[in-house]
Amino acid sequence: MKPTIRDVAKMAEVSISTVSRVMNSPESVIESKRARVLEAIEKLQYQPNSFARGLIYKKSFTLGLLIPDIENFYYTGIIRGMQDACIKLGYSLMICNTDRDKNRLLAYIDAFHEKQVDGIVFASDVMFPEYYEKLVRCKIPFVLLSTHSDEFEVPCVEIDDEEAAYDAVKFLIDLGHRDIGMIGFNHENSISGPPRYQGFIRALEEAGLEHNREKIRYATHRFEHAYHAAHELFTDYPDTTAVFCVADEFAMGVISYLKDRNILVPGQVSVVGFDNLRIANMFIPKLTTIAQPMYEMGCRAAEKLHELVTTGSVEVLREKMEHKLIVRESSRQR
Amino acid sequence: MKPTIRDVAKMAEVSISTVSRVMNSPESVIESKRARVLEAIEKLQYQPNSFARGLIYKKSFTLGLLIPDIENFYYTGIIRGMQDACIKLGYSLMICNTDRDKNRLLAYIDAFHEKQVDGIVFASDVMFPEYYEKLVRCKIPFVLLSTHSDEFEVPCVEIDDEEAAYDAVKFLIDLGHRDIGMIGFNHENSISGPPRYQGFIRALEEAGLEHNREKIRYATHRFEHAYHAAHELFTDYPDTTAVFCVADEFAMGVISYLKDRNILVPGQVSVVGFDNLRIANMFIPKLTTIAQPMYEMGCRAAEKLHELVTTGSVEVLREKMEHKLIVRESSRQR
Repeated sequence: MKPTIRDVAKMAEVSISTVSRVMNSPESVIESKRARVLEAIEKLQYQPNSFARGLIYKKSFTLGLLIPDIENFYYTGIIRGMQDACIKLGYSLMICNTDRDKNRLLAYIDAFHEKQVDGIVFASDVMFPEYYEKLVRCKIPFVLLSTHSDEFEVPCVEIDDEEAAYDAVKFLIDLGHRDIGMIGFNHENSISGPPRYQGFIRALEEAGLEHNREKIRYATHRFEHAYHAAHELFTDYPDTTAVFCVADEFAMGVISYLKDRNILVPGQVSVVGFDNLRIANMFIPKLTTIAQPMYEMGCRAAEKLHELVTTGSVEVLREKMEHKLIVRESSRQR
Repeated sequence: MKPTIRDVAKMAEVSISTVSRVMNSPESVIESKRARVLEAIEKLQYQPNSFARGLIYKKSFTLGLLIPDIENFYYTGIIRGMQDACIKLGYSLMICNTDRDKNRLLAYIDAFHEKQVDGIVFASDVMFPEYYEKLVRCKIPFVLLSTHSDEFEVPCVEIDDEEAAYDAVKFLIDLGHRDIGMIGFNHENSISGPPRYQGFIRALEEAGLEHNREKIRYATHRFEHAYHAAHELFTDYPDTTAVFCVADEFAMGVISYLKDRNILVPGQVSVVGFDNLRIANMFIPKLTTIAQPMYEMGCRAAEKLHELVTTGSVEVLREKMEHKLIVRESSRQR
């Protein structure tokens, strides 16, 4: 016969609610009682039943993570950070991949609702009103990661995209480049697209290089799209000597295109990426890039969600993490 | 007031057990009753409570996936396939990352047990007796993916590693290479290490090239390790003209090493990888490699686990998927 919470309470000579407090907020129980309860749990090899616990406390001790594309290298670092934080906080992490599909995403919110997750981290996609309304209707607390909402008051963790893009372009200008292109995210479906574009423009204006403002082509997330965008950019502006890419995968696509055209990187063209994925340090040439602290962002998102779930609010609504320029082999003095 | 299963049964004029059968095995309910139940569910906006359902049916409609390293590109394709199959089969997928840490893995089995997952897919790690015994003790059905067990009778989905390695090395021999090295997985902690080594040896023996059998160096999963292994290999055997790598990440490490030594790939040395990760087609040069059907393997593992969970057994204990040699730019005629 499996031991129950009653057996633990009896052996420890405390009430059932004290046992449950020891399991859920041990700091609220005085030391002597807590020690007796832990001893009883140990002796009886008591294992709380999560279904029963869910019914009693309306908590599942599970957090959900919605990511748009599991095959995008960007998310692996984030998942790792979030998972490590979850382990520390006593949560399981349930990851779902939406494929940027609105209906699938809405269906996942339903699934999370049915599983009664305690909260959701919503990563780097646009927070459309349908999503927001559904989450609110389901009463699931949520936090945005690598995205934010101008329309709604939702806690978020992200970097300063405008500043980061500015830093990358300023770096190219400081290297002596005067003909600079950009491979950006399509604006309509992207949260980080517009601010990164703004950062590009600000750096150009500051240096009196406004003639570059048209040298921007757009791509949608993948290597192949960036390859084609590079083809367009260099067909229209063959004198371009530097390209700022809003993703490392785009930088790889641009470098591959240039390689196929026998244009040397960094000999003839400098390329700067964004993210500092693990692959940025393996690629040939190794990528100069803007590092996002992906692991730490994953951790912070989990912690922030925990704060929201347990206290009902967060101290800092919009949290900005530090980015950093990492100089490697794909850029050179002009 | 939220509608209950009782409300649904009353409106549809059927028993509660009929409603539950419609939700769990609709094919067992005659068409007319089923339609009435579905209509009532729709009208009442009835949402079954998964905790309550878990308590009644002892099912959580969740599968667990244990992977050793979320940052390894190999798993993203697998996760995607497994998740798509889960959606079709009506399961949620809970992914946990073990970091190849025995204690963490054992703790995750506990967590899955507590969450009462219906089954676990255990991916590409050694099935140590501690794991096996714990899973059996917890009565959790499980399936191995990209690994197998010689000791225990456990269903698995994998490729024929010996044959795949043989094909890769045979390909290099057919290109005219006579001095062939290998970067392999350490044997003690690897399931695919020994058979891939055997495939290498078989191809050498068949071609009378046994003098290469010592030209093998080992690495542990990451790019940096393969870089160092390549340094050892080429220091000891500078005449090597081809290298078979048991992972694409190793091939990238070897090519980076050769690049740093100004040795051309494929001009002077051909390199063949293994896996056909998404990055294999982005790297410079694009990798010739053995493709594993990762997406399909993820799907099959989920389906096999579903078969095991619902019927208590599987038709085929050890399922072999097809591998395929993909020739790209990193290999050339000698």
